[in-house]
Amino acid sequence: MLGFDFEEERILHEITKLCAKRVLLQMPEGLKPQAPKLAKIIEKSGAIAIISADPCYGGCDIAYSEAEGLGVDLIVHFGHSKMLKDAAVPSIYVEARATVSIDEAVEKALTLLKNYTSVGLVTSVQHLQTLDQAREILTRAGKTVVIGDTGQMAYPGQVTGCNYSNAKSIEHKVEAYLFVGGGMFHALGIALSTSKPTIIADPYDNRAYQINFEARKIFNQRFACIQEAKNAKKFGVFVGLKPGQKHLDNALQIKALAEKTGKTAFLLTVREITPETLLEFPSIDAYINTACPRVSLEASGKFQKPVLTVNEFKVVCGESSWENILKKGLFEN
Amino acid sequence: MLGFDFEEERILHEITKLCAKRVLLQMPEGLKPQAPKLAKIIEKSGAIAIISADPCYGGCDIAYSEAEGLGVDLIVHFGHSKMLKDAAVPSIYVEARATVSIDEAVEKALTLLKNYTSVGLVTSVQHLQTLDQAREILTRAGKTVVIGDTGQMAYPGQVTGCNYSNAKSIEHKVEAYLFVGGGMFHALGIALSTSKPTIIADPYDNRAYQINFEARKIFNQRFACIQEAKNAKKFGVFVGLKPGQKHLDNALQIKALAEKTGKTAFLLTVREITPETLLEFPSIDAYINTACPRVSLEASGKFQKPVLTVNEFKVVCGESSWENILKKGLFEN
Repeated sequence: MLGFDFEEERILHEITKLCAKRVLLQMPEGLKPQAPKLAKIIEKSGAIAIISADPCYGGCDIAYSEAEGLGVDLIVHFGHSKMLKDAAVPSIYVEARATVSIDEAVEKALTLLKNYTSVGLVTSVQHLQTLDQAREILTRAGKTVVIGDTGQMAYPGQVTGCNYSNAKSIEHKVEAYLFVGGGMFHALGIALSTSKPTIIADPYDNRAYQINFEARKIFNQRFACIQEAKNAKKFGVFVGLKPGQKHLDNALQIKALAEKTGKTAFLLTVREITPETLLEFPSIDAYINTACPRVSLEASGKFQKPVLTVNEFKVVCGESSWENILKKGLFEN
Repeated sequence: MLGFDFEEERILHEITKLCAKRVLLQMPEGLKPQAPKLAKIIEKSGAIAIISADPCYGGCDIAYSEAEGLGVDLIVHFGHSKMLKDAAVPSIYVEARATVSIDEAVEKALTLLKNYTSVGLVTSVQHLQTLDQAREILTRAGKTVVIGDTGQMAYPGQVTGCNYSNAKSIEHKVEAYLFVGGGMFHALGIALSTSKPTIIADPYDNRAYQINFEARKIFNQRFACIQEAKNAKKFGVFVGLKPGQKHLDNALQIKALAEKTGKTAFLLTVREITPETLLEFPSIDAYINTACPRVSLEASGKFQKPVLTVNEFKVVCGESSWENILKKGLFEN
């Protein structure tokens, strides 16, 4: 299939190996248009192919409960690397590596990197196979290239929507970051984690641009949300239901912390946190999100009330400071 | 609490009886604003109260998988009567009976019922305790009152969003229906099931009005959706994930029927069917919904492609006819 490697042969091989009769295909929104074609390929093996049509944002969000409820033998999860250790249902991860060339976009990024000698190289799972090529282009242009590897991610240099440790860990060694990949999402995360100049080399649009203005806007919004939440009396503490977003113990600690500082707190369990979710609880003044920190950061403007990350709530309670968040970035504890 | 009976004492008694440590509160959108108060009452027992903040539309949609995932001992499900026989997690149903008086609204309905002698009396679970009072007002005005009881529902005279058997079963005995309750939702279901005049006595607004014009509009939309789907080549067959909406065998039969008539069909599993869900699958021309028939009927205008009920798809395939649907109503098989 055009644009990405869907590893159809490996999938069919796994189905045969496991004698899987019911196969659940799960993928993020950008890949869903390909799902019907992939289902047809899987049907060739004789298995029943079921497409998960619910939203999916990451490796944290693997469809174990859907699979268990439908007697599925194998989950094929596309577009993310493996994140959770224990599998409730046999699962394979098809990372959907992009086939697009990155050369032109990285060459164009050199102009934006001209004032920096040491560059941190970072990418999403789709473009990991291009890191060597990107490194070569940068080295040829005289840059010192640093690729982080904290061991937290599946691969060196990889970032996901909520984990920028491979970028953060090399902060002191680099003057700027180059993110290879499409869209602002991951690069914005780097800029929110490190406060260093962050350049995107987008191989789909074949262009390069800097992202720090957008990050500053989000920092300003987050600061305003924290200030607003300081006046809140009643807090809703979101507990995620997706396998990698379920942190009930953390939510209970946060509720206890809120109550210790004279606030009232309620536990709210959710699959998706949407603006509509908040409208159902008019008596709640602000929310603390223990599920997916990215939802808080991306959607400030959409939510009618502050939806804080755990770190931000600690600032509200006086257990941390805004300066500390700026130093550690919006994702680290 | 004002307006509804939340049976706080029964809930606390059940928590003590079961020694429940974690209690999940689940309720439809209209009752969610009361959830924080109810959570505080439950906390008095020493149990942890967790509010389910995801959408909930009926007794079919009980939060077993949420409860199992969070180690919950007891689900308190508000606003619906028990629908599913087997409970995966201990559950109690608090039907949230309304305390509002129905007298004025039913008196007002008499004018609209003046041309009919025999009246089918129907209500939602919130107002079941007022059926005797409503019957008395109608009888005093010279009406013959009929209350259906097919044994499919928890109570005689009760209808839910997708089951109108208590209305349908008395169709040949009545000239019109009186629905006692708020909003158009249930009354519209009666009109879509029976094609008899249907009057609402709304005790919240203290007014009475007829609903058949809105039902005709929906019948027209449904007919148009069926016509449009006759040109469709690729169908998505929705399989619900909520406990009472999970009909994989039915979906497999529908897929086989589609394929028998030369169409292509894909199984799509979903928690919520939204307009956004459809946008992810541009190659699919039309959908068949084995999850919640009401979603198809209510939201015609919102969806960019036809989302047919199973019965409607049988018309597309020539296994049933539009006349048959008109006769049986939009909910019966």
